[in-house]
Amino acid sequence: METLSAIDWERFQVLSPSEKAPYFGDGVREQHVILAQQFDRARLDALGALATRIRRVAKTHAGSDFLQQTLSHKRAMLFFTQPSTRTFLSFCAACEILGLKMGEVRNPSTSSEFKGESRDDSVRTFSSYFDLIIMRSEIGGLAERVAWLLSHSERTVPVINAGSGKDQHPTQALLDIYTLQRSFELQGGIDGKRIVFAGDLKRGRTVRSLSVLLTQYKDVEQCFVAPADLQIGEDIQAVLQERGISFSLRDDLRPELGSADAVYMTRVQDEWDASDGAASAFDPARYRIGKAELSCMKPDAAILHPLPRRDEISPEVDEDERAVYWRQMRNGMWIRAALIASLFGIEDEICGYVGA
Amino acid sequence: METLSAIDWERFQVLSPSEKAPYFGDGVREQHVILAQQFDRARLDALGALATRIRRVAKTHAGSDFLQQTLSHKRAMLFFTQPSTRTFLSFCAACEILGLKMGEVRNPSTSSEFKGESRDDSVRTFSSYFDLIIMRSEIGGLAERVAWLLSHSERTVPVINAGSGKDQHPTQALLDIYTLQRSFELQGGIDGKRIVFAGDLKRGRTVRSLSVLLTQYKDVEQCFVAPADLQIGEDIQAVLQERGISFSLRDDLRPELGSADAVYMTRVQDEWDASDGAASAFDPARYRIGKAELSCMKPDAAILHPLPRRDEISPEVDEDERAVYWRQMRNGMWIRAALIASLFGIEDEICGYVGA
Amino acid sequence: METLSAIDWERFQVLSPSEKAPYFGDGVREQHVILAQQFDRARLDALGALATRIRRVAKTHAGSDFLQQTLSHKRAMLFFTQPSTRTFLSFCAACEILGLKMGEVRNPSTSSEFKGESRDDSVRTFSSYFDLIIMRSEIGGLAERVAWLLSHSERTVPVINAGSGKDQHPTQALLDIYTLQRSFELQGGIDGKRIVFAGDLKRGRTVRSLSVLLTQYKDVEQCFVAPADLQIGEDIQAVLQERGISFSLRDDLRPELGSADAVYMTRVQDEWDASDGAASAFDPARYRIGKAELSCMKPDAAILHPLPRRDEISPEVDEDERAVYWRQMRNGMWIRAALIASLFGIEDEICGYVGA
Repeated sequence: METLSAIDWERFQVLSPSEKAPYFGDGVREQHVILAQQFDRARLDALGALATRIRRVAKTHAGSDFLQQTLSHKRAMLFFTQPSTRTFLSFCAACEILGLKMGEVRNPSTSSEFKGESRDDSVRTFSSYFDLIIMRSEIGGLAERVAWLLSHSERTVPVINAGSGKDQHPTQALLDIYTLQRSFELQGGIDGKRIVFAGDLKRGRTVRSLSVLLTQYKDVEQCFVAPADLQIGEDIQAVLQERGISFSLRDDLRPELGSADAVYMTRVQDEWDASDGAASAFDPARYRIGKAELSCMKPDAAILHPLPRRDEISPEVDEDERAVYWRQMRNGMWIRAALIASLFGIEDEICGYVGA
Repeated sequence: METLSAIDWERFQVLSPSEKAPYFGDGVREQHVILAQQFDRARLDALGALATRIRRVAKTHAGSDFLQQTLSHKRAMLFFTQPSTRTFLSFCAACEILGLKMGEVRNPSTSSEFKGESRDDSVRTFSSYFDLIIMRSEIGGLAERVAWLLSHSERTVPVINAGSGKDQHPTQALLDIYTLQRSFELQGGIDGKRIVFAGDLKRGRTVRSLSVLLTQYKDVEQCFVAPADLQIGEDIQAVLQERGISFSLRDDLRPELGSADAVYMTRVQDEWDASDGAASAFDPARYRIGKAELSCMKPDAAILHPLPRRDEISPEVDEDERAVYWRQMRNGMWIRAALIASLFGIEDEICGYVGA
Repeated sequence: METLSAIDWERFQVLSPSEKAPYFGDGVREQHVILAQQFDRARLDALGALATRIRRVAKTHAGSDFLQQTLSHKRAMLFFTQPSTRTFLSFCAACEILGLKMGEVRNPSTSSEFKGESRDDSVRTFSSYFDLIIMRSEIGGLAERVAWLLSHSERTVPVINAGSGKDQHPTQALLDIYTLQRSFELQGGIDGKRIVFAGDLKRGRTVRSLSVLLTQYKDVEQCFVAPADLQIGEDIQAVLQERGISFSLRDDLRPELGSADAVYMTRVQDEWDASDGAASAFDPARYRIGKAELSCMKPDAAILHPLPRRDEISPEVDEDERAVYWRQMRNGMWIRAALIASLFGIEDEICGYVGA
């Protein structure tokens, strides 16, 4: 693998995600987790299996103690300059499952104690006390920059991108894949399934990442249901076309429900509105699941949602067995634990555990 | 036990504490800790004994390691939307004694990332990563609401009310009872003692809860010393009368000290003044303990205070053996550890520990 | 040792550091860590050896687990009213190495819940849940005050000063000494070396403390390179003269580099400017190390810096083997762990560890 340390940062920064991908995914264990695209199918399958293994071992007190001992000598820094309680709690739980100690850094750049210090020095300072950096930032590409920087220092520690800018949030994509893997466990896996995405598909980074990752599975059909101006980006459509993936664009969810194996719902991302300028003519009734819509769906379909939701799924749906979005959150915790375990190379130790 | 899940929330919310009590205390292990009134004497005695057991086991390094292993596979969320460093630190210490991992959530409702999400969804989100919710809020009844909500979800976790609104702070009442239990350990316990409450008895929720809990003990005489407009509420007086408890109302502390087995001092709760509107004509000299007052007291009496204090106890009293208010704080840590242990049903494991 | 509890606080507060020193350093294990001057050479050597021992034991998973078990039954409070992410993270890491649990208190004095409570009561409250207080404050002498207060209470816990006011930051001095010890490990130690200090020597407390500590080593020559109005204080010069230490004052770094065994670089402390009023005429080119300056230095010299740096060391120096400032930070973690271990008297337990 060509490591990040061999890449000229300035040049790297302007590459598109697909141009960057080769630097990350060649079958060798990656040192950093930066882009959803760096995960090939073999690794996605391995991570899913490891997450399930961890989930099962953690069920007993003895198993949980065993897991907590595997990385008890390691420390993770949660560098969250963009607040996200959900992602934060999920990573905390993942670290605690494996026994990693944690330190938290919120916003050092605005703190007076860092005035006059370069950001690179700050990062290097913090990283001296840690063995893993988990970072979330509103600055696109910052996680890559830090990964590159640390790969150049004498004390290289892995970096996990926990969301940077509007673009990348690779562990969200991993948990979505893992949720689909679990949902289709008794139905032959993800291959051959029909996945329907609904809502604001233009701005949500989770759908964009998941859509591209799904191209690694055989005969998966993708259907994008959104109003025209919130439809999935043309760059993603181009990738799908290039890879010969069957997909369709629609603007009403109801007719698609009957044939869907999974429906991935999303909310309107109001927080980006100010910068986009455009007010969307969004008829929510066409992109919503309630009790009536449930009755149109297959009995073993799965309803996903990255949460938080607003009105696109009514609370009465929660009690239906097909609603997997609450479980999806806990899946995030398990897949993140699996990812961290794989970064430290302890898969075999975990798989070799024999409960008392 | 009729669980919270069987209760209609809207109806429940308007019940008085005594009307709510039957839903919580029928001898079956309670799932949640919401009201002081849910604890009957048998449970108070059992919790006190367990707290003492934990305190003794924790004294050795081996014992402390044993305790930390008992709940090492569990995670507690400290959901503190109303700041309280004291209560927070006390619960942290309690969790750490038993090895629970902790996550902290401050004020999610004002955070932009939660805009548009229902509070119920937020709570359910957070709770997915945890096995216990400890919550403190300025909203009366919120802990009950959350308990009810989680009892309705597929992943029920216990809720401990760490103070909600002006009304309930059940673990403070537990630590007060435990402090009295310890103070009267060699004097036959709480039965038959004379307890004097002094200060602002109208607004302090600790005195109100403690007074009601004490009605479960035999022949306890209660004396309330306060200026007329800060005297103990008529609702509490009604409960005492109904249960045939001997009590008196006074407005000068000094004459009551000679016969007191315990004096429970409180400070004026200035923080509620704005909402009450009434400025109190409070002559502090009549509700204060200094060196002179000490000499009037029984040699084995106990002086309690929920802290923080202002001038109602002079610092020179601290060195007197009867001053138990500093110990009272550490009692809070032990009784909270006992409470958590009982929620997870590990009393027998702890009592069965044989030190090396 | 005359303990702090025997000292009248009001009188003590106005003593100079050197007048205070006798109260702290007489060879008996100190209870508190307040001043750099309380450490004599024997203790500095012992702490350095212990830090190295801890560093080596921590390298293996089994060794790390062993260390984490040594103080697993203790809890440290990090009372940081003056924010310092660096010092905070370093102490966190030190505590975690030894397994101490931690609680954090930020700024209680401005919190409404503490209105009306004396600071002494607040401190005593917090300390009830902890076995060690690590405190950093902008108030000079506060750590001493707290140490004195706790020595007077029934529950005495040790206090470590993690920086108070402009004056004292003893653990920074310890990590500087430890870095010099490590740098000269193969060169016979610190004795006989020439140490050059450069930058703003007037206001930086680290140089002042380190300079005085170095007087305990044999034949160490000290050279202070700074513009006249930022030169090392006359009080420090008086101490050096009194102890017969050879030192020189210079205003250009370049000519001193060839004979330096270690160069201790510092940045201009802009943050004190407002209070000092004086704008310094500082020609930074004369107090800077870049590639060109490197070539003048001895091949086994050491370049230290307390960080953060600005322009006084150019980033290209980082890759030179003589740049030890990044390692210096991790040294801070190890020496702080050693200090905590020594406060709890577990040196022998650590030194007796035999790895599996």
